[in-house]
Amino acid sequence: MKIGVLGGGQLARMLSLAGTPLGVDFVFLCQAHDACAATVGEHLHARFDDKAALEQLATQVDLLTYEFESVPAESVEYLGSRLPVYPPPGALATARDRWHEKTLFNELGIKTADFINLNSFEDLQQAVPRIGLPAIIKTRTEGYDGKGQRLIRDESELAAAWEAMLDVPAIIEAFVPFAREVSIIAARSVSGELAFYPLTENEHRDGILRKSTALANDPMQGLAESYARRLLEHLDYVGVLAIEFFQVGDELLVNEMAPRVHNSGHWTIEGAETSQFENHIRAILDWPLGSTALRGHAVMLNLIGDLPDSKKILAQPHAHLHLYGKDERPGRKVGHITICAENEAEVNACIEAIGPV
Amino acid sequence: MKIGVLGGGQLARMLSLAGTPLGVDFVFLCQAHDACAATVGEHLHARFDDKAALEQLATQVDLLTYEFESVPAESVEYLGSRLPVYPPPGALATARDRWHEKTLFNELGIKTADFINLNSFEDLQQAVPRIGLPAIIKTRTEGYDGKGQRLIRDESELAAAWEAMLDVPAIIEAFVPFAREVSIIAARSVSGELAFYPLTENEHRDGILRKSTALANDPMQGLAESYARRLLEHLDYVGVLAIEFFQVGDELLVNEMAPRVHNSGHWTIEGAETSQFENHIRAILDWPLGSTALRGHAVMLNLIGDLPDSKKILAQPHAHLHLYGKDERPGRKVGHITICAENEAEVNACIEAIGPV
Repeated sequence: MKIGVLGGGQLARMLSLAGTPLGVDFVFLCQAHDACAATVGEHLHARFDDKAALEQLATQVDLLTYEFESVPAESVEYLGSRLPVYPPPGALATARDRWHEKTLFNELGIKTADFINLNSFEDLQQAVPRIGLPAIIKTRTEGYDGKGQRLIRDESELAAAWEAMLDVPAIIEAFVPFAREVSIIAARSVSGELAFYPLTENEHRDGILRKSTALANDPMQGLAESYARRLLEHLDYVGVLAIEFFQVGDELLVNEMAPRVHNSGHWTIEGAETSQFENHIRAILDWPLGSTALRGHAVMLNLIGDLPDSKKILAQPHAHLHLYGKDERPGRKVGHITICAENEAEVNACIEAIGPV
Repeated sequence: MKIGVLGGGQLARMLSLAGTPLGVDFVFLCQAHDACAATVGEHLHARFDDKAALEQLATQVDLLTYEFESVPAESVEYLGSRLPVYPPPGALATARDRWHEKTLFNELGIKTADFINLNSFEDLQQAVPRIGLPAIIKTRTEGYDGKGQRLIRDESELAAAWEAMLDVPAIIEAFVPFAREVSIIAARSVSGELAFYPLTENEHRDGILRKSTALANDPMQGLAESYARRLLEHLDYVGVLAIEFFQVGDELLVNEMAPRVHNSGHWTIEGAETSQFENHIRAILDWPLGSTALRGHAVMLNLIGDLPDSKKILAQPHAHLHLYGKDERPGRKVGHITICAENEAEVNACIEAIGPV
């Protein structure tokens, strides 16, 4: 069994590390010379719109998945005509466009912050009184890790904000004074089997995820699962789906979804019976999904920009180091640490001993 | 950091799966075309005595390890003159020869079954009255999985047994009426840090390991650790070492040692805080060793000869499948399953549900 992956970054790398023990081989289509998944699979070095490479990939593998949503629709369409592509291209198209995505959420009765579509500066001027300030302008496509977003506090900032958006389609969204951010990682197999991981609480800094904490028996678990189930079934989804929420009082407002394995689910490698990576592979192969039960308490810390002192981290008995084989660069995710222990006190002591990362 | 491995089988494959998240890359020297580690590292396709390949390997990697002990001494010596080789070549030489190995055990006060060195049929005839029958003849080198061994029950079998040994150096060893077979997996780092896993009870069939059970708080743990410590320190050992024992009453008789990661330690991937594979990598890089604490109860079942029905195994919530990417062949280790759960009853129910493998 051979799986093709569009993308060759850390998510592709961790998919292979989880799928190889299941007897699966991997081919990564990635234009980067230093694709960090290349050490654990075959690297097809080309752009996503390279027809010959897509053709070669299609003949080499049994089915196809991807590690991020910004792949050209035409490439996915072509591959979909040749072999099974999971998650389904429709889910990819929806997730790639914030306006489509949020519109779907609302249609399915899943709450979001108020939002309005923007095609022009005039649209923005008319939208502000309806949405109120502060508000956030976000490009409809291509944004991740806080890129393509701009907070507006005051009407005087409107013109500069629109200019910074480079006149691309965007939305304006009400700023949500949330109590916390949580996400759910869910999986659905080809035959429709469902699995939901325990909720994760996420802390961001400068728009980038820094810390994820797995939550045991969180009161919002049921609501998050019901939203995830609606989405998975509506989209006839196959694979792992991540959904990010803002919690306001007893409500969950969906922020966005990611049709793939997700940074906020990295703790599942040590912290759950089956990792999100293994369950993604199982789901797309239509194999039984694995248990998502917690194994103790788990917290994940992202390593951003700088490589850590590996020895210092590994000296902590409950710390598990995951480096992605990437060079240092400001703002770049170069690895993560999962701290996993029997109880919360041990986890916190370990985080303190490691210090800032 | 790049590590070279002599051998490209399942042990090499699992070393890479454990070492890749630590930011380590791997090169495997292996003459097999279908080396199953080749999907998770670079495959240098050559024999162990190919000088040019050894030269290439030495220039490509930072240090060297091996996945089995039957590598030519000259190759290891050459590599050792070029870069660090762990475990140390001396330990390899000792482990490769049963007579040297057992002689060392006794010198260190570690008990074994009685044994006598054999160079000729006359030696055998003289040894039998001293050792008694039944007894086992074993080749001094190259034996594994019960190969190169022959049980003698009666003096009339002596001539045929010696002939079957093809006149190579051998030993005769008293047959041990053991209560059980256990093994310990131990690790020692370059700076001398030590770690010991909980004892494993092993069940063999036709000379091949079938089932390993991790033992919590076994009464023989202390004795096994003291023997392992003596060996590790005497050999100035670096890396993971496995030692197999026969238990007779309250005594442990050493059967043999393996200067590498070992089949009876595969349960550590899910069943211990840090796997034997990760601790081998940490030890040879002189990084802090990881905790060897148990995570629940763990049993490993080897998959011999035939590939299993993956779906049936994965339908069991506590079963973890490890396939090695090998074709089916009678007697060949093609994978293993680890069953890991909170309590023994759950583990046993899972084993029963899976059925014979």
